[in-house]
Amino acid sequence: MQQFLIEAKKTSRHISTLSGEVKNKVLNQMAEAIIEHCDYIINHNEKDMENARVNNLDAALMDRLLLTGDRVMDMAKAIKEIAALKEPVGRTLDGWVTEDGLNIQKVSIPIGVIGIIYESRPNVTSDTAALCFKSGNVCVLKGGKEAENSNKAIATILRKVLDDNGLPQNAISLLPDSSREGVAFLIKQDKYVDLIVPRGGEALIKYVSENATVPVVKHDKGVCHTYIDKDANHEKAIAISINAKCSRPSACNALETLLIHKDVAAYILPPLHEAFMKNGTELRGCSITRNYIDIHSASENDYDTEYLANILSIKVVKNIDDAIAHIAKHGSGHSEAIISENYSSINKFLDEVDSACVYANASTRFTDGGAFGLGAEVGISTNKLHSRGPMGINDLTTFKFKVYGNGQIR
Amino acid sequence: MQQFLIEAKKTSRHISTLSGEVKNKVLNQMAEAIIEHCDYIINHNEKDMENARVNNLDAALMDRLLLTGDRVMDMAKAIKEIAALKEPVGRTLDGWVTEDGLNIQKVSIPIGVIGIIYESRPNVTSDTAALCFKSGNVCVLKGGKEAENSNKAIATILRKVLDDNGLPQNAISLLPDSSREGVAFLIKQDKYVDLIVPRGGEALIKYVSENATVPVVKHDKGVCHTYIDKDANHEKAIAISINAKCSRPSACNALETLLIHKDVAAYILPPLHEAFMKNGTELRGCSITRNYIDIHSASENDYDTEYLANILSIKVVKNIDDAIAHIAKHGSGHSEAIISENYSSINKFLDEVDSACVYANASTRFTDGGAFGLGAEVGISTNKLHSRGPMGINDLTTFKFKVYGNGQIR
Repeated sequence: MQQFLIEAKKTSRHISTLSGEVKNKVLNQMAEAIIEHCDYIINHNEKDMENARVNNLDAALMDRLLLTGDRVMDMAKAIKEIAALKEPVGRTLDGWVTEDGLNIQKVSIPIGVIGIIYESRPNVTSDTAALCFKSGNVCVLKGGKEAENSNKAIATILRKVLDDNGLPQNAISLLPDSSREGVAFLIKQDKYVDLIVPRGGEALIKYVSENATVPVVKHDKGVCHTYIDKDANHEKAIAISINAKCSRPSACNALETLLIHKDVAAYILPPLHEAFMKNGTELRGCSITRNYIDIHSASENDYDTEYLANILSIKVVKNIDDAIAHIAKHGSGHSEAIISENYSSINKFLDEVDSACVYANASTRFTDGGAFGLGAEVGISTNKLHSRGPMGINDLTTFKFKVYGNGQIR
Repeated sequence: MQQFLIEAKKTSRHISTLSGEVKNKVLNQMAEAIIEHCDYIINHNEKDMENARVNNLDAALMDRLLLTGDRVMDMAKAIKEIAALKEPVGRTLDGWVTEDGLNIQKVSIPIGVIGIIYESRPNVTSDTAALCFKSGNVCVLKGGKEAENSNKAIATILRKVLDDNGLPQNAISLLPDSSREGVAFLIKQDKYVDLIVPRGGEALIKYVSENATVPVVKHDKGVCHTYIDKDANHEKAIAISINAKCSRPSACNALETLLIHKDVAAYILPPLHEAFMKNGTELRGCSITRNYIDIHSASENDYDTEYLANILSIKVVKNIDDAIAHIAKHGSGHSEAIISENYSSINKFLDEVDSACVYANASTRFTDGGAFGLGAEVGISTNKLHSRGPMGINDLTTFKFKVYGNGQIR
């Protein structure tokens, strides 16, 4: 496997210099090849589905694993959309002339070799491969065991297109040893691998973060908050809270804890309660909350929990400082919102809350590459460095300094 | 020590919101305090010097450790220069309005708590503390054992100024447990520490990289190359090679291997040899090089070595591709230069060499915060992500997205 990674690194030097024209032509051919071989992909997916049935996978996982004709068409469409993105490599990020007359240009370049570890959904294979290729990176993909046949089929089709175009097939690779040991090896190869992106459960992310020597961009959990200030518009407060919690409770940008200023708790809790009841949300509240509405009590543990379900904890706070302190203690630095019409409160909240995305009067559900207008979604980073929050294709680049001189010495 | 880091994290929320006005006032007072307590610092430094004499520290280390009146004044001057830098926090890095009418602002913010591990020179203590404070970060400093008394004296003075201004003293802290175990603990506290910057020998950097769960910005070795193309101007080629090697051989941006196109080897090697002889440089060459000039032979191992001394290896290459391949194999991704008057060769070299800084017709010695015009030097990163190459104070910030809505739901 060492040799495999050495070759991947070599290939990355080749791929990193491809022109946008070549990359886009190849990507569009990949999309066509996916459409053309739709049956081939579905046949292989059927093997995974059969194994899943034998292994009694739960219904939600089965659904994520399933590929239909429509879903394969969506995969092709996604690749075409990626081809249409603005070229991410070679952007001038900054530039200046020094006192010595050196012309310095800070330009975006591919990261190199990117290892991506993910689960179930086979479309991640084609999405990720296309995003990495478009940004001039080599990808080493490690999908879930349960999707092995589907992932292999998809990779085979994409690699064939590379080959047809005289490009090295290993620009898009599945990790040859997909066992635990294979992953353990991969994440320590900092000489050949430049970035690891783990997308999956908490255990996977924890394992990778603790053991990798390669830099990691995490897609960790979101314990997101919305704070209803004393100067909140009540209609907006209710609409945003309902949307943030109920529109997709399993998303990482969904609301988990609602914080309410004590001065408005009496007015806003009864209509909020009613609205959440209509949406079937289970509410768990602090003792003050429960003075106003009849719900179960929330424990300290509730405040640290990403429910991934239609459950919401509610806490009444003394003031905005109390809300900010609660978020600092219990939040995961993902997305938080304040609902207020007060200029100073909004500035204070947006300045002092240290999360990737901080919202004034909008739902945290907007934390998303597409909703941010970044184009195809690479993921949502919970890192504090390199990339943070919704990741677009530009987050798959780093930079170098090109320095143009005319004989300068120092 | 856990409690110490919990408190540091709390303090970072406070420090991160200080205005530039407050920070600059405090920094200027720190500079004055350093001047005022010059004798106090020198007295404590004398204890370190005495221990160094007892322990037979070598002359170069003794010189790095020594503080004189002039050197203390320079420390104060450096703090004033840092105070005068443009405010790094709150810069709008990007901004746009989404289709939903959300106004998104990507703004720079402090990183949080930064652990810095360094050796000998006591001025690093005040420089780093000032850079971190200016950029709204809390610093946890772990200096060398040999400079313990000096570092404590400097930190005491800076912390007193924080206290005089009603600011928490732990915004500038020395690591309470400076043992190996203390460092091992620090680099795994990713919940409370946001970044580790190791500045020191290879062993330290390797240890930190392999064991940290906190993100690391490395200041690793530089195996820098200069390639003399067949279309090089010979005068520039010689002047730049001499400067890159001889102006300060111990620097990480110094030249280690000179690559020469075969077509010009016969003409340029003799005058190069003569020029290096005048500078007392020990040359080690490949077999072709040794056909033209009488020098020792270079081994494969030489090509991987950062000499940190006035020694240079020379290799004749077939063409520019051969030069680029050699750099890919042996380089450390720090700084490389091409000397050429050929437009296409220069573009090819700057595009294909994957190093932090790639130069056309200039000395690699310019890889430096000051020479780049970035102001006070934070260091030179050999990371590929977050920061790369010369680091200015802006590299001590990360970002968040502030999103201004008016009731948007999704």
